Amino acid sequence: MRIFIAGVDGYLGWSLAQHLVARGHDVAGADLFLRRRWVEEMGSWSAVPISSMRDRLQAFKARYGKELLFWEGDLRDYAFVKSIFEEFEPDAIVHFGECPSAPYSMMDVDHTVFVQTNNITTTFNLLYAMRDVRPQAHLVKLGTMGEYGTPNLAIPEGFFEVEFRGRRARLPFPRLAGSWYHWSKVHGSNNIMFACKLWNLMATDVMQGVVFGTRIDGMRSDPRLQTRVDFDQSFGTAINRFCCQAVIGHPLTPFGKGHQKRGFLPLRDSMQCLTLALENPARAGEYRVFNQFAEIYDITELAEKVKRVAAETGLEVEITNVENPRDEVEDHYYSADHRNLLNLGYKPTYDVESEVRVMLADLGDHRDRILAKKDVLIPDVHWNRPRKKVNFIDANVAAAATAAD
Amino acid sequence: MRIFIAGVDGYLGWSLAQHLVARGHDVAGADLFLRRRWVEEMGSWSAVPISSMRDRLQAFKARYGKELLFWEGDLRDYAFVKSIFEEFEPDAIVHFGECPSAPYSMMDVDHTVFVQTNNITTTFNLLYAMRDVRPQAHLVKLGTMGEYGTPNLAIPEGFFEVEFRGRRARLPFPRLAGSWYHWSKVHGSNNIMFACKLWNLMATDVMQGVVFGTRIDGMRSDPRLQTRVDFDQSFGTAINRFCCQAVIGHPLTPFGKGHQKRGFLPLRDSMQCLTLALENPARAGEYRVFNQFAEIYDITELAEKVKRVAAETGLEVEITNVENPRDEVEDHYYSADHRNLLNLGYKPTYDVESEVRVMLADLGDHRDRILAKKDVLIPDVHWNRPRKKVNFIDANVAAAATAAD
Repeated sequence: MRIFIAGVDGYLGWSLAQHLVARGHDVAGADLFLRRRWVEEMGSWSAVPISSMRDRLQAFKARYGKELLFWEGDLRDYAFVKSIFEEFEPDAIVHFGECPSAPYSMMDVDHTVFVQTNNITTTFNLLYAMRDVRPQAHLVKLGTMGEYGTPNLAIPEGFFEVEFRGRRARLPFPRLAGSWYHWSKVHGSNNIMFACKLWNLMATDVMQGVVFGTRIDGMRSDPRLQTRVDFDQSFGTAINRFCCQAVIGHPLTPFGKGHQKRGFLPLRDSMQCLTLALENPARAGEYRVFNQFAEIYDITELAEKVKRVAAETGLEVEITNVENPRDEVEDHYYSADHRNLLNLGYKPTYDVESEVRVMLADLGDHRDRILAKKDVLIPDVHWNRPRKKVNFIDANVAAAATAAD
Repeated sequence: MRIFIAGVDGYLGWSLAQHLVARGHDVAGADLFLRRRWVEEMGSWSAVPISSMRDRLQAFKARYGKELLFWEGDLRDYAFVKSIFEEFEPDAIVHFGECPSAPYSMMDVDHTVFVQTNNITTTFNLLYAMRDVRPQAHLVKLGTMGEYGTPNLAIPEGFFEVEFRGRRARLPFPRLAGSWYHWSKVHGSNNIMFACKLWNLMATDVMQGVVFGTRIDGMRSDPRLQTRVDFDQSFGTAINRFCCQAVIGHPLTPFGKGHQKRGFLPLRDSMQCLTLALENPARAGEYRVFNQFAEIYDITELAEKVKRVAAETGLEVEITNVENPRDEVEDHYYSADHRNLLNLGYKPTYDVESEVRVMLADLGDHRDRILAKKDVLIPDVHWNRPRKKVNFIDANVAAAATAAD
């Protein structure tokens, strides 16, 4: 299958390119390297060093025996996207060409407008290029479980049968996103749903849980193949950040009460799921939604897993909650369907500890890089206040607050 | 009350400025005159001649004895919006600063991206200026009944109580918009809902029906006070277009089968409703939705009303359906709540014929202007095909198709 990855230089993009070529697919990609700039703007870098695209492409060819066709350019430029589709003629498109950070979108008006307009524009350019050049191609769009927020209802996969005043209909499940970034993904989901209906396109919208992990199989054979692992407040995700904290002996820092529940999955599972979506495409005109995660965990439960595995390797770390810079419910009902990928054969990794063991080993090699930027481990972007580092919450105060609930 | 109107040069904006000043409010506005350019781009102009803003402002002062504070500039520029808020200190903001056309948004990728990013950006700039400068101000945002589309359920006002798998919650009613423009309004509604929660702002989101009419009280005293009346496919609305067709003896052209049902209201009712929303603001943190229309009509029923009133004045016109350039259901269930404005005291105009009588008289004075641009009366922007004028549907063929349903 000829698969085009928009945003191939990112955490998921660079991993997926390798996973797909190893399965025999022809892979191409484009990137403007914005993720590298955004992380730099946050005062950070990848915990594990990453290579230039030039070096990445050489290593890719050497390892997999196939070229990765690559275009450097701006996915907000329709002529650029269209010319790629004309040249490469993709059978499938994976859309990672969006800014994926909630805190980054919450910094100020410029960042909010940038994140939403960037994400909407890249998505439209891919949709129009499909319509104009490759209407038979299948779009796999990366959404997020965060589009649903935390409603006080079970979360289906995209749609639900609803009865209202005696009539029934199948409708999109209402979204309650919790950041401007997450809303940008809702806007994108709505636009893609309409494009499929309008132009008879096919798309899979992946509501992905929080991904963690430092590698996929084969990636460690050549350091140039390594994907990025971020630990700053904007581009680092929960378990990755906990592991980076653990290897330098920094306290693990759940936000607020720390009982937020979310779906999680390892990087290798994300690759497995996206591949299942790609190899089992939607039908013409079909817009389908997959909730993509292995298991729902409470954030404190995950911090405890990281602490436990770290202790095995001689790293003693504390869990110390910090003030929550976000506006979110910290203890809530959460139940979300995730049958669609299981039905296609997804074998989830439930063993978070094994994954964390690998991560701590990988990150241990780069302790100095994390130490050099350790300031970024404590967030300062608030949902509704000016930037200011959050404080640690005194353990006794926190325990009393929880007990009083 | 100090009321700022974003997009004060438009059909509704220029009317509302006069309606509000006549009620004793202090009114200010901003515009970049994009609506004038868009209509020109569609090869058209206002059926009734309109004045430059310079002349409008002079006439406004002369008629109402008060200045309309006006800023020419781009609402996509945050510094511009913020400086207005700092200078004028509005108590309320009416947001007409968006591109309001479905066909315009469906022309090509550039227009799609422009409409969505423009509408999202102007909305964010107003929300951020409220947060930063006037958090106590009330936002009245013009949405559209088109955000809901035509689901096979009753349409509530914004939210509904829903039961799903044994749990209940009050959630946003799912939207099924039918054009990129209508989706841009859904994106805006979602963003405003979240901003109210996040920053404790207050907003009324008006899901407005299709507005028709050539004037409000007082507007005809000075031609410089006249608001625009569009009749092109992109910026002209159904009854306005039928009336412009009638005065030049052109057939009235419902799309497709012509049994689309929509909520409608006269321009004077729109002014009445928006004023009720402004004078009865939402509470801090409240995001409320008003469905704003007088009555639901079937398009063919409206064409027949226009035909009947035209005949009284000696204008014999045919109703001849044309191919539907849109992708929409042409005969469907439609029921929508609209209690909120009635509860505030809205007195709807149910007498469409009287309104049409006035419109035909007003438009009759400018027959030559409509004739000069009569080409724009037949649409050529399709929802999923290249631009091409639609054909008239043979009456017998249309009748047979309807009978066969």
